[in-house]
Amino acid sequence: MQDGQWQVYLSGEIHTDWRDQIADGAAARGLPIAFTSAVTVHEDSDDCGVKILGAESDNFWKDHKGAKVNAIRTRTLIEQADVVVVRFGDKYRQWNAAFDAGFAAALGKPLITLREDSLTHPMKEVDAAALAVATDPAQVVQILDYVVAGRLS
Amino acid sequence: MQDGQWQVYLSGEIHTDWRDQIADGAAARGLPIAFTSAVTVHEDSDDCGVKILGAESDNFWKDHKGAKVNAIRTRTLIEQADVVVVRFGDKYRQWNAAFDAGFAAALGKPLITLREDSLTHPMKEVDAAALAVATDPAQVVQILDYVVAGRLS
Amino acid sequence: MQDGQWQVYLSGEIHTDWRDQIADGAAARGLPIAFTSAVTVHEDSDDCGVKILGAESDNFWKDHKGAKVNAIRTRTLIEQADVVVVRFGDKYRQWNAAFDAGFAAALGKPLITLREDSLTHPMKEVDAAALAVATDPAQVVQILDYVVAGRLS
Amino acid sequence: MQDGQWQVYLSGEIHTDWRDQIADGAAARGLPIAFTSAVTVHEDSDDCGVKILGAESDNFWKDHKGAKVNAIRTRTLIEQADVVVVRFGDKYRQWNAAFDAGFAAALGKPLITLREDSLTHPMKEVDAAALAVATDPAQVVQILDYVVAGRLS
Amino acid sequence: MQDGQWQVYLSGEIHTDWRDQIADGAAARGLPIAFTSAVTVHEDSDDCGVKILGAESDNFWKDHKGAKVNAIRTRTLIEQADVVVVRFGDKYRQWNAAFDAGFAAALGKPLITLREDSLTHPMKEVDAAALAVATDPAQVVQILDYVVAGRLS
Amino acid sequence: MQDGQWQVYLSGEIHTDWRDQIADGAAARGLPIAFTSAVTVHEDSDDCGVKILGAESDNFWKDHKGAKVNAIRTRTLIEQADVVVVRFGDKYRQWNAAFDAGFAAALGKPLITLREDSLTHPMKEVDAAALAVATDPAQVVQILDYVVAGRLS
Amino acid sequence: MQDGQWQVYLSGEIHTDWRDQIADGAAARGLPIAFTSAVTVHEDSDDCGVKILGAESDNFWKDHKGAKVNAIRTRTLIEQADVVVVRFGDKYRQWNAAFDAGFAAALGKPLITLREDSLTHPMKEVDAAALAVATDPAQVVQILDYVVAGRLS
Amino acid sequence: MQDGQWQVYLSGEIHTDWRDQIADGAAARGLPIAFTSAVTVHEDSDDCGVKILGAESDNFWKDHKGAKVNAIRTRTLIEQADVVVVRFGDKYRQWNAAFDAGFAAALGKPLITLREDSLTHPMKEVDAAALAVATDPAQVVQILDYVVAGRLS
Repeated sequence: MQDGQWQVYLSGEIHTDWRDQIADGAAARGLPIAFTSAVTVHEDSDDCGVKILGAESDNFWKDHKGAKVNAIRTRTLIEQADVVVVRFGDKYRQWNAAFDAGFAAALGKPLITLREDSLTHPMKEVDAAALAVATDPAQVVQILDYVVAGRLS
Repeated sequence: MQDGQWQVYLSGEIHTDWRDQIADGAAARGLPIAFTSAVTVHEDSDDCGVKILGAESDNFWKDHKGAKVNAIRTRTLIEQADVVVVRFGDKYRQWNAAFDAGFAAALGKPLITLREDSLTHPMKEVDAAALAVATDPAQVVQILDYVVAGRLS
Repeated sequence: MQDGQWQVYLSGEIHTDWRDQIADGAAARGLPIAFTSAVTVHEDSDDCGVKILGAESDNFWKDHKGAKVNAIRTRTLIEQADVVVVRFGDKYRQWNAAFDAGFAAALGKPLITLREDSLTHPMKEVDAAALAVATDPAQVVQILDYVVAGRLS
Repeated sequence: MQDGQWQVYLSGEIHTDWRDQIADGAAARGLPIAFTSAVTVHEDSDDCGVKILGAESDNFWKDHKGAKVNAIRTRTLIEQADVVVVRFGDKYRQWNAAFDAGFAAALGKPLITLREDSLTHPMKEVDAAALAVATDPAQVVQILDYVVAGRLS
Repeated sequence: MQDGQWQVYLSGEIHTDWRDQIADGAAARGLPIAFTSAVTVHEDSDDCGVKILGAESDNFWKDHKGAKVNAIRTRTLIEQADVVVVRFGDKYRQWNAAFDAGFAAALGKPLITLREDSLTHPMKEVDAAALAVATDPAQVVQILDYVVAGRLS
Repeated sequence: MQDGQWQVYLSGEIHTDWRDQIADGAAARGLPIAFTSAVTVHEDSDDCGVKILGAESDNFWKDHKGAKVNAIRTRTLIEQADVVVVRFGDKYRQWNAAFDAGFAAALGKPLITLREDSLTHPMKEVDAAALAVATDPAQVVQILDYVVAGRLS
Repeated sequence: MQDGQWQVYLSGEIHTDWRDQIADGAAARGLPIAFTSAVTVHEDSDDCGVKILGAESDNFWKDHKGAKVNAIRTRTLIEQADVVVVRFGDKYRQWNAAFDAGFAAALGKPLITLREDSLTHPMKEVDAAALAVATDPAQVVQILDYVVAGRLS
Repeated sequence: MQDGQWQVYLSGEIHTDWRDQIADGAAARGLPIAFTSAVTVHEDSDDCGVKILGAESDNFWKDHKGAKVNAIRTRTLIEQADVVVVRFGDKYRQWNAAFDAGFAAALGKPLITLREDSLTHPMKEVDAAALAVATDPAQVVQILDYVVAGRLS
């Protein structure tokens, strides 16, 4: 936080527009929040390593190179964040999202999880480390409005 | 502290206007201080969890949800603070205020307590961790004037 | 924790035998736990400062000296602890207990609170930082049995 | 590590005997390693919260209570560990395993992942934080033999 | 350091104009440095505690109150500093200066000592923790010019 | 990072214009990055200690004084950096570059190495701590473009 | 602290037998305390650098070498200590003692000062960081008996 | 350090018997020191990655895998060490040794360098971070005897 501006990191699922919903909601309320996240263009996220640093014949190393380049961005932004929101969907394994949640928790960052009610049981360890468990992006906006601006709406 | 601006967190009792007295006093002296605190609207502070995240039939969980949403704000602001002032009155249990004091002390934040003389004995452990023990908001303003601007008045 | 031995700090109320109940229960189960706490002889805790370091005419300084000598012990033992249990009763202000809870929370220590159901509302901020909220010393023993020995009984 | 004894935390999947394979392999080589892990009795892990601290009508809070009691054990042991091994299978969501990996990574713990080759793509962010990516418990034993005893076999 | 502006804390002797010499020299070179220090009005520094928080009959407690109020300022500013300069003269005991040097060293702050050649032997432990040992304020200006602006003059 | 501006420290070889290539490339793309580095005027870097603080007859102490004055700058800037790039050439011993890499790694800074392919074997321990291994300054620019601006080009 | 054994570092004046008085007093009470300190043979402490690492023609460097070799011991032992006692006499400058006090304070070590009443004013900043201010080694023994064994005598 | 036993990490050159000289010298003096180091069998150190985790066609990845497996051991042992000794010879690039020195320095570990006089200039940045610069293993033994046992011989 600098000069009253909060930094909120949005981690997880990249196939729906939840990030936009939260950012738009926060903007509509005039909240002084800068949102950050991983690169959310799926193809770029997968290819950045080999495209910049050279091709790999083995998929493991292709993924490895890319994941590390992405980590330069994600770890820096998580460490800078005042609050970390992690979104889980019902598709894909999303171990990167859970990894981010654990990383943020160990750094003592306030954590908000965002997921369907149906995920209660598999989410239990992650939720136990969270300060709020939301099911709708609008709730995240309300929480941010409350914690940043002190408004309960 | 950013560019010479200090951040002072005001914790504790919300039934008198001590926060305003300190903020007004600091403003009157032109001190470059941003004051922060928990949400001080009692009802909002109690209800924020269930109002945003859904009702609870059990009061324990209602309180739990709310306290955690509040913690997103309070822990962030205490960690950002250069100085933490904790105010104790003679009513209510105020364990949240003492909790904040312990939290701030463990983070190495300079701590100022503000309370009646009659509370000396029950305050002794908290006072022992404080760098100043004041009984009047005006004293807190004087301390801030001295430590921030170097003026002794 | 050293060589599989856990250290558990017991903070708070000193007028009932809850510490003994927990220690006896743990011993009966053969748990490798060393329990620590503040000096629980009320008079010694109040007088240690002036008795060792010289009398004070002003009660504030008498309390101050004593509280600091006690802090040499309590802060060291809280920092050494693997788990911190904080007990609140319905008498006295117990700000030292809440202070210890905040201190432990900021250090990232797993926190267990132990208090009557009737204290739910004033305890909400402290409970929100705890990993377990117990109402009976026997529950604390069961928790320790589970987390240390992996036994659920 | 104490007096040359290493502590290795084994996180993740609880349906196969990979923990035993690693512990037995290490014992056969005489390695001075104490292995730790979460409680691996699935039912106990799910029920510990409500069984000790009282029933809940809402499954979310049942899970929440249990996950927190488990966290007293798991966070303490991860923080104590010299090395953290995280095992992923091809069933279940295993967000707790990925959470543990992120938690360990943020603490700077050397991380070893253990999973099928088929999981390369979804594992890429977790693997990028690991110092070794193994597919067989026997490899983990070999790594431990090498890093603890300096033997390459 | 913020936006390329360095913060330099000037600790120690308050009877000569060495702080002004350094600040003037830095200003003359246009260096982006904010200098901070304790309150250097000797009388205010001695009296701040009792003047703000109430008289004391015992000189120990008068000094104690004042020293703690000063510590709110000095510890905050030392923790904020990028570089700490500590000046020792040949008069007075100056344990506060040596204390500041130890405090800064433990925080990993780059330390510059400034003192007469005749003090070499008693300064040896403090100098051993310093990255530069100067005997003239002009040298401190030159060092700051070099480390901040990269100019060797 | 402040207000979205990243700070990138460029360590190592000072005989080619790789720093300019990276800074120019980042400027051309409009990246909000402030680049920092040691003083790169070789003679000044060698002489700063004795020129400012007095001559030494023994080369060891001449070097020692200079290296420490340089360390005031380099350690401060490495600690401030969001990303550290370390460049190794095929001449000279460059232990200072490898030292910086180790220092940055221990602080948890994302590390990018930049060196010829021919250096793979001697670089292996340093590369193992890096999140990207580049052989061309243009690749470093592409990485920064990706991690700072989210553009893959 | 290991297995209930405390480590207490004794810093400062080496011309009287205060260390023996404290160690003997603690032994007489059967306290589980290991006392540590700098090398207290004055000549060895001064000469260790040049005697081991080679002569120096310049006294500054002779002192510098020696002070650094001593620092290997003193910083390690201060960091290991549970409690730090710093003794000031009325002779010599003793900046190393005040430096140790500042170093210990910044690490959060409980600090006990031991000095004559006549030193109250010059000691005020150091005393302000201490949890006990003693004037007699016997008081230090009593404090240790209280904080380690819980006995007030 | 545990129970008075120190842990000393020996990093660097593996082609002469300097480690044995130091260990034998320390044993001859009865010093309570446990020495640790990387695996010093050159071939094993190079091959451990591929031998345990599977072959690689690209030498970069072969080296990468091996360097990371070695890092599990070396980082753990450096973090455990009370003192780190780094040996530089006049052959090979030894960037791993300089990396270890930087890593240890950032962790605040007391550092001793051991190298030929002829290496003074290229060693200057590493030496500037060291508390002792030795040219003979016997000197390292003498330093350890002094700092651990307090004997100057």
